[in-house]
Amino acid sequence: MKYNIGIIGLGVMGQNLALNMERNAFSVAAYDLDEEKQIEAREKFAGKKMHVAATLEDFLNSLESPKKIMMMVPAGKAVDAIIEQLKPSLSKGDLLIDGGNTHFPDTERRWKELQTEGILYIGTGVSGGEEGALWGPSIMPGGDPDAWPMVKPVFQAIAAKTDDGSPCCEWVGEGGAGHFVKMVHNGIEYGDMQMICEAYLLMERVLGLTPQEMSDVFRQWNEGELNSYLIEITANILSKTDSQTGKAMVDVILDTAGQKGTGKWTSIAALDLGIPAQTIAEAVFARTLSALKDERVAASKILTGPQQPIIDDKEQFLEDIRQALYASKICSYAQGFQLMRAADAEYGWQLQYGNIALLWRAGCIIRARFLDNIKAAFDKNPRLPNLLLDDYFKTAVDRTQTGWRRVVAEAAKRGIPVPAFASALAYYDGYRSERLPANLLQAQRDYFGAHTYERVDAPRGKFFHTQWTGQEKD
Amino acid sequence: MKYNIGIIGLGVMGQNLALNMERNAFSVAAYDLDEEKQIEAREKFAGKKMHVAATLEDFLNSLESPKKIMMMVPAGKAVDAIIEQLKPSLSKGDLLIDGGNTHFPDTERRWKELQTEGILYIGTGVSGGEEGALWGPSIMPGGDPDAWPMVKPVFQAIAAKTDDGSPCCEWVGEGGAGHFVKMVHNGIEYGDMQMICEAYLLMERVLGLTPQEMSDVFRQWNEGELNSYLIEITANILSKTDSQTGKAMVDVILDTAGQKGTGKWTSIAALDLGIPAQTIAEAVFARTLSALKDERVAASKILTGPQQPIIDDKEQFLEDIRQALYASKICSYAQGFQLMRAADAEYGWQLQYGNIALLWRAGCIIRARFLDNIKAAFDKNPRLPNLLLDDYFKTAVDRTQTGWRRVVAEAAKRGIPVPAFASALAYYDGYRSERLPANLLQAQRDYFGAHTYERVDAPRGKFFHTQWTGQEKD
Repeated sequence: MKYNIGIIGLGVMGQNLALNMERNAFSVAAYDLDEEKQIEAREKFAGKKMHVAATLEDFLNSLESPKKIMMMVPAGKAVDAIIEQLKPSLSKGDLLIDGGNTHFPDTERRWKELQTEGILYIGTGVSGGEEGALWGPSIMPGGDPDAWPMVKPVFQAIAAKTDDGSPCCEWVGEGGAGHFVKMVHNGIEYGDMQMICEAYLLMERVLGLTPQEMSDVFRQWNEGELNSYLIEITANILSKTDSQTGKAMVDVILDTAGQKGTGKWTSIAALDLGIPAQTIAEAVFARTLSALKDERVAASKILTGPQQPIIDDKEQFLEDIRQALYASKICSYAQGFQLMRAADAEYGWQLQYGNIALLWRAGCIIRARFLDNIKAAFDKNPRLPNLLLDDYFKTAVDRTQTGWRRVVAEAAKRGIPVPAFASALAYYDGYRSERLPANLLQAQRDYFGAHTYERVDAPRGKFFHTQWTGQEKD
Repeated sequence: MKYNIGIIGLGVMGQNLALNMERNAFSVAAYDLDEEKQIEAREKFAGKKMHVAATLEDFLNSLESPKKIMMMVPAGKAVDAIIEQLKPSLSKGDLLIDGGNTHFPDTERRWKELQTEGILYIGTGVSGGEEGALWGPSIMPGGDPDAWPMVKPVFQAIAAKTDDGSPCCEWVGEGGAGHFVKMVHNGIEYGDMQMICEAYLLMERVLGLTPQEMSDVFRQWNEGELNSYLIEITANILSKTDSQTGKAMVDVILDTAGQKGTGKWTSIAALDLGIPAQTIAEAVFARTLSALKDERVAASKILTGPQQPIIDDKEQFLEDIRQALYASKICSYAQGFQLMRAADAEYGWQLQYGNIALLWRAGCIIRARFLDNIKAAFDKNPRLPNLLLDDYFKTAVDRTQTGWRRVVAEAAKRGIPVPAFASALAYYDGYRSERLPANLLQAQRDYFGAHTYERVDAPRGKFFHTQWTGQEKD
């Protein structure tokens, strides 16, 4: 028997994707170099239209033609190694798919290299963790447009579905587009998580709430416009008790965050493309600061800050925090979409932003009700320069900015670090500034480095230089 | 006659460095591919112990052995091209120097490549602009330690001198160390400039000061602990009148800042090394936001913010702004030095942080009185983990944080973007936090991705996983 699709790499993600495919009536051949993984998968796959090959040769022979092979291995050298290993056995028109968290320039490179050999290539983001892989992830494929019809039925079948049944999988664009969009998804995820942490910190330090009380607040917030997977699991986390100590689980977990680099890539892409995505970058830096635990413990004994009592009007300040969280979240997403727009202009992917919001509507970590509003915004105006300018989001920020400003001000006065809330607010106030102080900055650059400047009363693109010291000579 | 040193590239920087060397009794041969530059330099160099060669061959023949050749050409491919062109004519022990704004990994690579051919290599930061190049720049050389004695007399002679006569030039370290330190210098410069702009914006929007009034304030600040070149030129800029319109010069300059990438590199290095240098990154993002002028103009007509009257107690709020500027500046430098410390650990350069502060004490753009305090801090404790922990800076922040917090809070309430002040404050408050909310973040990561966490009551390096939904199974 020949199988519909092949999966290389039988970690949990690979196994679960395979099971998901089989459940949706696609037969799957699978392979892993690691014999233990093979044995584990054979047990799990028993009785299904699935075959775990013992050798790469057997794996390849068991696939129908044209071969469709999905690699679920760690991003990086492992992918290149497998491509090199597979290449001699592939024919023109066969399709390789990388489903890992690959940095988009790598996908761009592999796609071009394989093009010259007539082998089709797709690099696809897959989000949703282990559960998502099994029951319906968000899938963001990019690469060879010719390859899309070959996997569209499989991918759209196994993908998460929105409430109205639309699959959270649509073609993103050529080359590295799919992995770029997945990268931005992860950058936005970093922002969302950091902002929830700031809300939690404020509830603890300004209001003195217990984890269970906070859990109740998040659960309540999850009923409204903040409705999202991350708010939901935060509520669950905060109500969880540690069986070992009887304390709240969150209180026994060490405050050092790890990272796998996708938020960093997003920030670097923003810097490279010249796009202000500072709130996402602040979220990344917040993780690096959290990792300096020993330094922080030492510094906490030396450096001082203000001491202020708990606020009594808890209801009002909780609502302020909710507003800060929602308004900041809108800014963070606005930055992410601005970044994709800049990448689109650079790479010519012709991204469909409404579709992208839909891809994230279910299955993935940042799934949230307000992605419907983002989709609606881009459906209304596919060339919307910034989410903030859409009526819905403009009104949302109008409605929430008073609380947001109070929270940032209060945190500054009380010595509570809320880098993402504060950065998002500065972004909002900067973006709506007709005039920023960069005129002084350009004057400085011209003063010490003759970098020239433009004038407010001259056409753009005409550059002037002032002889700042001594005689004027412009 | 044979000349002591050769310079390739006769832009203003190359010309001025050459003139500086000759004034300090070193004879200089010079070359530029561009004949016009040759003619211009021949005029300027007339009557001096200098030779402008018409051909590369003539240039090479006119140098004493071992040859010492300094390239003053745009960073990037031009440097590689010249190296390739020169290599056949160089002998073992000859020395190539790159004095451009080169990205440190390029210097690292070229140094290693030339090592295999026995050619010595130095990559050196040179800061101070055109005037500095002529009268005394700050020079930050790294590369082959064996090469340092060959140019030490020249470099230390032409370098800027501190008040006590020490040259602002000392060996930085192997490989790319010199260019790394120059890069961090520039990142810090981005931060300094942005923070001065934020002070200026607050004076304008909160206090309604005229440019001339602001100039007086900056001139007064320059007498105190903020004393620095950038504050000095800001005072000069703000008192300058545009001859064309009679308006303040700063008011006719367009508010779109350019950049050449070194601040971006610093931010990327921080992200790569996992160091919280968010204030420098915010300064880079502020430039990118300023560049979106058309978008901002359009957004300013749509997005809303609070309207508040001018503050009457000008003296108090001006002092608050001064405190915000000084405290934020300390944080930005603390981030820069943390970044160098991380790079040192990665590359094994054995950086001398006190020396680096001294290199920046005069000649360069960020020259400032308080670099003496930084030098003193590292002289006292060469392994100081963070500038903020030094007594002098700890006390300085203690003294200024009330005003700093008032400024950030007031800006948030009034809708004035101060991303660097706010980010620096969040950095300070985060760094002095024994506990940050990253425990919740790790719980989230473990919840959706099984990324595990450490416990507060278990040894570091021991990782736990919780089955958050359904049955506990850790």
